[in-house]
Amino acid sequence: MKKVSLTGDRPSGPLHIGHLFGSLLSRKETEIENESYVMVADVQALTDHFDQPEKIRENIYEITADNLAVGLNPEKTTFFIQSKIPQIAELTVFFSNLVTVNTLKRNPTVKTEIAEKKDLFGQEGESLTYGFLGYPVSQAADITIVRAEVVPVGSDQLPMIEQTREIVEKFHRTYPIKGNTFPLPIAKLSDAPKIIGLDGSAKMSKSLNNAIYLKDTPEKTAEKIKTAKTDSGSSIKELTDPNPSPSIYNLVRIYALIHNQKIIDAYKELDGMKYSPFKEKLAKDLNNYLSPIRERREELKPDYIKEVLDAGSKKVLKKAEETMALVKKAMRIDY
Amino acid sequence: MKKVSLTGDRPSGPLHIGHLFGSLLSRKETEIENESYVMVADVQALTDHFDQPEKIRENIYEITADNLAVGLNPEKTTFFIQSKIPQIAELTVFFSNLVTVNTLKRNPTVKTEIAEKKDLFGQEGESLTYGFLGYPVSQAADITIVRAEVVPVGSDQLPMIEQTREIVEKFHRTYPIKGNTFPLPIAKLSDAPKIIGLDGSAKMSKSLNNAIYLKDTPEKTAEKIKTAKTDSGSSIKELTDPNPSPSIYNLVRIYALIHNQKIIDAYKELDGMKYSPFKEKLAKDLNNYLSPIRERREELKPDYIKEVLDAGSKKVLKKAEETMALVKKAMRIDY
Repeated sequence: MKKVSLTGDRPSGPLHIGHLFGSLLSRKETEIENESYVMVADVQALTDHFDQPEKIRENIYEITADNLAVGLNPEKTTFFIQSKIPQIAELTVFFSNLVTVNTLKRNPTVKTEIAEKKDLFGQEGESLTYGFLGYPVSQAADITIVRAEVVPVGSDQLPMIEQTREIVEKFHRTYPIKGNTFPLPIAKLSDAPKIIGLDGSAKMSKSLNNAIYLKDTPEKTAEKIKTAKTDSGSSIKELTDPNPSPSIYNLVRIYALIHNQKIIDAYKELDGMKYSPFKEKLAKDLNNYLSPIRERREELKPDYIKEVLDAGSKKVLKKAEETMALVKKAMRIDY
Repeated sequence: MKKVSLTGDRPSGPLHIGHLFGSLLSRKETEIENESYVMVADVQALTDHFDQPEKIRENIYEITADNLAVGLNPEKTTFFIQSKIPQIAELTVFFSNLVTVNTLKRNPTVKTEIAEKKDLFGQEGESLTYGFLGYPVSQAADITIVRAEVVPVGSDQLPMIEQTREIVEKFHRTYPIKGNTFPLPIAKLSDAPKIIGLDGSAKMSKSLNNAIYLKDTPEKTAEKIKTAKTDSGSSIKELTDPNPSPSIYNLVRIYALIHNQKIIDAYKELDGMKYSPFKEKLAKDLNNYLSPIRERREELKPDYIKEVLDAGSKKVLKKAEETMALVKKAMRIDY
């Protein structure tokens, strides 16, 4: 039996090459090895974009197109929209009684994200919404509603999976049945190196305008790389410094990834090259690399994307109904 | 147009004469004046009974029987089970983004209830669950899912209605549409005096074993009144003391209620009566008063109660679907 895998994207912006190397490419392996689900996390995106639903609406199709353009097969990967599955909210409400406010406040991922969103939640988190604090609970419901066994994540998301496992174990202790209601999900850590922002920020993100999107034109891509931060220096030197310039390192990292090289080999190959011609070469090679993805993306019709999401959501709805029947039976509220 | 009214009971125990005089009787007026809904709040009861689902299961039929026995007409009052309406959970999740953790922590009703439940949530509320903290959010969803305009409550619940109104107003500001998505609900304060526990506790409650249930036998009722606390003294004196003995006052209050008297007149009538014969008289009169309710209760078949709840839940499900269509349209997530 193939194991059930769940992962997802927040539709708060189109996907960029950080997503590509960090998760999208590995989904092609996941869909072969697993019964694979990819969730468009619109309800989750609303937790920190509740006043920008228009943005979420737009990006549902964009991120699904990004996934399909990379070559994921909707016959193998089930794409679905979170808000189409009301059972996720039901399960969130039941799980809410099994986790304390203090546990959620101590969750490292939640703490980091609250600190990053001072404009939304205040300097000291004094305007933290009830919904955002509960985002690990809702994520536990996302995972368990399809009874996922494997959750591909980046290392920053490990505390979230730990929280899900705690909730699942508490559910099983509180509502014991023979054989347990849920599998205990395990995190599958991505071994992909992290791509940072072109401006040197720790994250590629739309709000910082420091990302190369899969849907960017070749010209736009070249322009973004041309103006990318390079720190000090004027040419690439072999990788001997234990703390190399992070911005150049990041660009060489991208170069290595598209050429399927180790980064140390990329540094060797590029040794002595001036930044400016290196950036031109990187732009050309990245555009070549992205070209088949962009072509497939161009060919995707909105009607087809809608069909993929509708069919996937319908399939998950059925599975979610089965899960909730099991949940309510275990909870003895199956009247 | 009749106004929509919503109220409800937690199925954590059968209903007692405190409920009868505090809310059940006034529901007979409500069902004539309003489009009346009574919710069996099983999901809400789980917030502080999450480890006792069996108890909730039992009491769903008990409390519905109590309501019907009092003479409510299921053709006029729609009875429904909260957990049968997944849209309430969906709406709870959306509302969660519109209220801060700090606001919920400051809610007086929540504060009082947390303080009362130290065994569950800890001396300082350190084990407070995420679900219990969010109970005003979930209650806002209960009220708005049927687009209720009037909410009959006791004065201790006023902060909850205030919270619902704040959430509704924030929803309308965040997701404006012409004509607004929800009516702004108003509290309808019960003018019924509060019945305290037979042991002198501030509340009649099953856990304190100080309540007279509608389903109690006449013998049980007489026994409970016989052993009820009377404070000091041995006979009833006319009501001149501004701080009368609360336990005797409570028994005279019950006497006055069943005889449709003002309490001061009941005191006059009973002046000089020894406690023991008064208690016998009270037991006899209360049993007479409850007798038609108990007879109707005896006649109610479980199948009939199930039918009432099924039909009501089905009707509310339809209304909840309409509400969520309006909500998702206003939120621009109606894809």
